[in-house]
Amino acid sequence: MNFKEYLQRRKLMIDEALEHWVPGENEFPPQVHKAMHYSLFAGGKRLRPILTLASAETVGGQISDALPIACSLELIHTYSLIHDDLPCMDDDDLRRGKPTNHKVFGEALALLAGDALLTEAFSLATRPDLMKGISPGRRIRALGLLARAAGSLGMVGGQTMDILSQGEKIESALLEYIHTHKTGALIAASVGVGAVIGGASVREYKALNRYGEKLGLAFQIIDDLLDVEGEERKLGKAVHKDQSKGKATYPAVFGIPESRGQAERLIEEALVSLAIFNSSADPLREIAQFILNRTN
Amino acid sequence: MNFKEYLQRRKLMIDEALEHWVPGENEFPPQVHKAMHYSLFAGGKRLRPILTLASAETVGGQISDALPIACSLELIHTYSLIHDDLPCMDDDDLRRGKPTNHKVFGEALALLAGDALLTEAFSLATRPDLMKGISPGRRIRALGLLARAAGSLGMVGGQTMDILSQGEKIESALLEYIHTHKTGALIAASVGVGAVIGGASVREYKALNRYGEKLGLAFQIIDDLLDVEGEERKLGKAVHKDQSKGKATYPAVFGIPESRGQAERLIEEALVSLAIFNSSADPLREIAQFILNRTN
Repeated sequence: MNFKEYLQRRKLMIDEALEHWVPGENEFPPQVHKAMHYSLFAGGKRLRPILTLASAETVGGQISDALPIACSLELIHTYSLIHDDLPCMDDDDLRRGKPTNHKVFGEALALLAGDALLTEAFSLATRPDLMKGISPGRRIRALGLLARAAGSLGMVGGQTMDILSQGEKIESALLEYIHTHKTGALIAASVGVGAVIGGASVREYKALNRYGEKLGLAFQIIDDLLDVEGEERKLGKAVHKDQSKGKATYPAVFGIPESRGQAERLIEEALVSLAIFNSSADPLREIAQFILNRTN
Repeated sequence: MNFKEYLQRRKLMIDEALEHWVPGENEFPPQVHKAMHYSLFAGGKRLRPILTLASAETVGGQISDALPIACSLELIHTYSLIHDDLPCMDDDDLRRGKPTNHKVFGEALALLAGDALLTEAFSLATRPDLMKGISPGRRIRALGLLARAAGSLGMVGGQTMDILSQGEKIESALLEYIHTHKTGALIAASVGVGAVIGGASVREYKALNRYGEKLGLAFQIIDDLLDVEGEERKLGKAVHKDQSKGKATYPAVFGIPESRGQAERLIEEALVSLAIFNSSADPLREIAQFILNRTN
């Protein structure tokens, strides 16, 4: 398997599904739909839906069954970026090399587009014409997992502490809370949702969930490292942003070498938890390596 | 049946359910949970969940089965109020006689509390320990209805056009679009969700859906009328707000007598669509009258 090609194909599949299933940008009212499309098709890597599909396949599920709720993961991720970039939050002008949503559409439409994308995640995954191969009970379970990962005890909780601790000196325990919730929760849920839809056994689910949790935290630590070490051109956003905003980051608390060491250990642990699977988990293994070595 | 007592009892039941099921205000992070609780327990009438319960009962459903998703309706309603009041939207200082969420907690926490309440709606209605009497397929159908009513083709679409048409002279068709979507969609969904959970036949569902649509539009027209004619003390918010903001309202487009006439006709039509039901629909009938005659 050529992994680069695999990622490219999966990204295409997800892009097409989103184009097909999310209301078109000329649907009424076009203003909010254009704002939704702008951020949804701004060049995201589609990591979360790719994880959902790979996780479902690892336990023998069909990717066609997992594709709608995989798209839901990307919708929730996109909404969180739009709201995070708003002036009252991180106040960012640039995202993936483009002006942020509110810079183009204004704050009101950016707020509404975010709200609509979050809602669309649940609208898409409950469509009566999709996911017919999946029992409704399994769908409910996957939806619940998704909602809890995105809510006040998950991602929103992490964003809350991220915003509130700006400029504060924080303990490593709170830093880990922020990272595992702000970013980790949705990445872990991407894997968990795929496992549920794919019909994982309890043992398989636990292994995949552990993989997702380790991967999610590692992802955010690497993100912090890229902010310190990365190149603006490759990242498509300003570097050294975290520092200038007084954000709590792993490099700031632990230093660069120790942060990289932690990320490497987490990826190693993520790989170990996949030991119960045969080659069906190879894409998840490659994704873990990819996240460790990414430069954007 | 004493209708006032009925409303009071149902409101209590819903308040208790929300207290019980929504994460407590001291859950970590307390800041976002306190902001969520502040608006969720700010004295709302609980009209939407009361409609869900009454609709489920009309078709022979158990209110205990409908209670979680009835609470979801209130969670979505509350999130929409918090986001609507933000400076980039309606920029309101007062809601139900109290300072708006962002006035108390700041914009970032108000934004996050709204996001969390919307997400919690889907988290609550997918909890594995609740709604066990309802088949998962029926739950999925109800959840889909809810999500579509709240999204860009429903409530968010209405809010979009409401914001974009401020200060503009608009046609009556667009005015009706705004009202049926901004407010009507979620009220109609409250009734529709109850019908689905209660196990309505196709004929019953159609009748209840029609009732909900008429009621929803009537509700917003009365809201417009109260803004012109109402007393600030009773409403708990400033009057003549719509006019000062250049908002599109029924009284502004049609005049006060014609607007009241339209609301009365809609309530009449809502009642007519309940004709197929016996006394099981009496609460829905009383609610329709109550909405027509409300003073806050």
